[in-house]
Amino acid sequence: MTTLDDLPLRSELKGRSPYGAPQLDVEVRLNTNENPYSLPEPVAEAVEQALAAVLRDLNRYPDREAEALRADLAAYLGAATGHDGLTGANLWAANGSNEVQQQLLQVFGGPGHLAMGFSPSYSMHEILAAGTGTQWHDAQRGADFALRPESASSLVRVYQPDIVFLCSPNNPTGTALDLEVIESVAREAPGVVVVDEAYGEFAREGTPSAVTLLPKYPRLIVTRTMSKAFAFAGVRLGYLAADPAVVQAVQLVRLPYHLSALTQAAARAALANSPLLLAQVEAIKTERDRIVAGLRALDLTVADSDANFVLFATPTRDQQATWQALLDRSVLVRDVGLPGWLRVTAGTHDETTWFLEAMAEVVADQRNAAPKETVTVGQEKSSDES
Amino acid sequence: MTTLDDLPLRSELKGRSPYGAPQLDVEVRLNTNENPYSLPEPVAEAVEQALAAVLRDLNRYPDREAEALRADLAAYLGAATGHDGLTGANLWAANGSNEVQQQLLQVFGGPGHLAMGFSPSYSMHEILAAGTGTQWHDAQRGADFALRPESASSLVRVYQPDIVFLCSPNNPTGTALDLEVIESVAREAPGVVVVDEAYGEFAREGTPSAVTLLPKYPRLIVTRTMSKAFAFAGVRLGYLAADPAVVQAVQLVRLPYHLSALTQAAARAALANSPLLLAQVEAIKTERDRIVAGLRALDLTVADSDANFVLFATPTRDQQATWQALLDRSVLVRDVGLPGWLRVTAGTHDETTWFLEAMAEVVADQRNAAPKETVTVGQEKSSDES
Repeated sequence: MTTLDDLPLRSELKGRSPYGAPQLDVEVRLNTNENPYSLPEPVAEAVEQALAAVLRDLNRYPDREAEALRADLAAYLGAATGHDGLTGANLWAANGSNEVQQQLLQVFGGPGHLAMGFSPSYSMHEILAAGTGTQWHDAQRGADFALRPESASSLVRVYQPDIVFLCSPNNPTGTALDLEVIESVAREAPGVVVVDEAYGEFAREGTPSAVTLLPKYPRLIVTRTMSKAFAFAGVRLGYLAADPAVVQAVQLVRLPYHLSALTQAAARAALANSPLLLAQVEAIKTERDRIVAGLRALDLTVADSDANFVLFATPTRDQQATWQALLDRSVLVRDVGLPGWLRVTAGTHDETTWFLEAMAEVVADQRNAAPKETVTVGQEKSSDES
Repeated sequence: MTTLDDLPLRSELKGRSPYGAPQLDVEVRLNTNENPYSLPEPVAEAVEQALAAVLRDLNRYPDREAEALRADLAAYLGAATGHDGLTGANLWAANGSNEVQQQLLQVFGGPGHLAMGFSPSYSMHEILAAGTGTQWHDAQRGADFALRPESASSLVRVYQPDIVFLCSPNNPTGTALDLEVIESVAREAPGVVVVDEAYGEFAREGTPSAVTLLPKYPRLIVTRTMSKAFAFAGVRLGYLAADPAVVQAVQLVRLPYHLSALTQAAARAALANSPLLLAQVEAIKTERDRIVAGLRALDLTVADSDANFVLFATPTRDQQATWQALLDRSVLVRDVGLPGWLRVTAGTHDETTWFLEAMAEVVADQRNAAPKETVTVGQEKSSDES
């Protein structure tokens, strides 16, 4: 039998495993930051009709540049962020913001180029850099996960990256960046600055989007997705907003006809119904706030969240024990590899209740087992260093 | 205003323009090898139902590895090519065979690696190589566009490419390769051999698929698409068949959740109805043969075609004049950049008739203008050399 080792893979890929959260069959699935609500019925019907309308033309290639969709995205994003100068020329769309970011790395990164991020952050940025042969510098955040204007920009000054990735609200920590941080990086960066706003719609009241900075910084790029706020993870629609020149640059590397006619039609139908979808976002924010408050009531440290998920400190540094104890109670959350922390997605009201009740039990159990646990902490620390 | 020149693009991209045929609004569009027929009504209905069935789950990510779709593709491809050992583990799918081939270049190519093709062939192979930082060697075919086992394998021996691209039936020439050519290359190649069979279903009776060679060559990869035979260009579904280890390797570089739930559902519905779609393929082959015969009856040189398109020699070396003369008669064909040749897609019966009548007029006009044209050929030759 042929195995991976028998194939002439690029050496960088040897020993790697595919990206992706474990997919387990449980009652309460709060591990991939999905929107817990199906499309509202009127939206599902609008999408269904939009798909039916293109079925007889599927023998033809789709609009290669997705002009109509990009105009719709511009209208939505302009209204959502208060930037009224956006047009389709500022927008670009692809199969998920992963593909958008991969295209940006193909344009501005690649061999001999450096991309930089501030971890813990969305781990795909580094994986996408590797996949495009772009060198990666990981500038680590401090213990409070915060990013400050001076420290961020001084790191940019030192490393001179071709691409800086910022993530706001940040995944997995959940907190949005002050625009001041983004501006200080944008002023200093010799190349482009990508602000990943996948969770932008969930930000707390009064949190401005980096989209409002675009007119000031032609090398600033904001990426977004319909996966989260639009309950459209299954459709794969990511997009960016930037100066039209950036869009033209991406068109040099995009695969021709990369975005299917089904995707374009479905996305346009959902955008036409954004108020109904954004009402669900409000419900999710309510549950998100309930998780933050509920975990703090258990005396746990919890990061401020502007997203549809919450990062919280586990009762012990052994977050895997808490992850397993929750799984034993049929709740799947995400171990993002931060010792002592776990990430939980805000689900429906019932899912949130289930999670909070499970956590109350787990915390009580672990605190009762405290003497034994001291030993575990010691072991855990040494294995962290290896 | 910011322009492309103001942006810090990778130097290789400077001055490039996006890939894609001009999209003009004409009566008879025979330039991108699309299937001229819409989905048959029962297939359109099956696709519609399949899409409706996933609408309420679009808030969830799609099956990341597209397991069910890959099993269906294996069943279809096994039956179509007479290879009964294929399972889902041999198959991989992505948004068009362009994305499949890009993933293969990410795995087996990249900086410091060499890919090789035999032009004229599908020009995206070279563009995909550039996009992944893979060096490209263009081994040119002779004047008859044929590829012979000894000459192909000896070029592989000399250049030692990490990836060889073969295209069968070849685009733009239309002729399928003898399996002997593929075997001689596969035996010699130090890396992987990719056979692009995008037009495989249109091959003339008795033309075997390279899929039948897979058990013998674990580093042989066959890519296919649903864009052509399945009248599904709008859906973007390309796939590969290979040893399961190749599929595992591609999973190391695929973007997570690259293939939408809509795409997976639509493709499965179409595969379940493949006999109805393959009946349309027979109709297209009939028109293709009528084009070959019709152009030969006009005393033009025409390449044998196993595809849904035909490459033919224009009456003069100035193929642009013929392209324009056809456009003046509302027929859009493809100038693939081969002096003295044009490519035309087999359309419906009426479209084929329109094209053949237009060509009869154009040939007569150009032959009447022959004395003037001798000068043009001379001018054309000198500009070819520049």
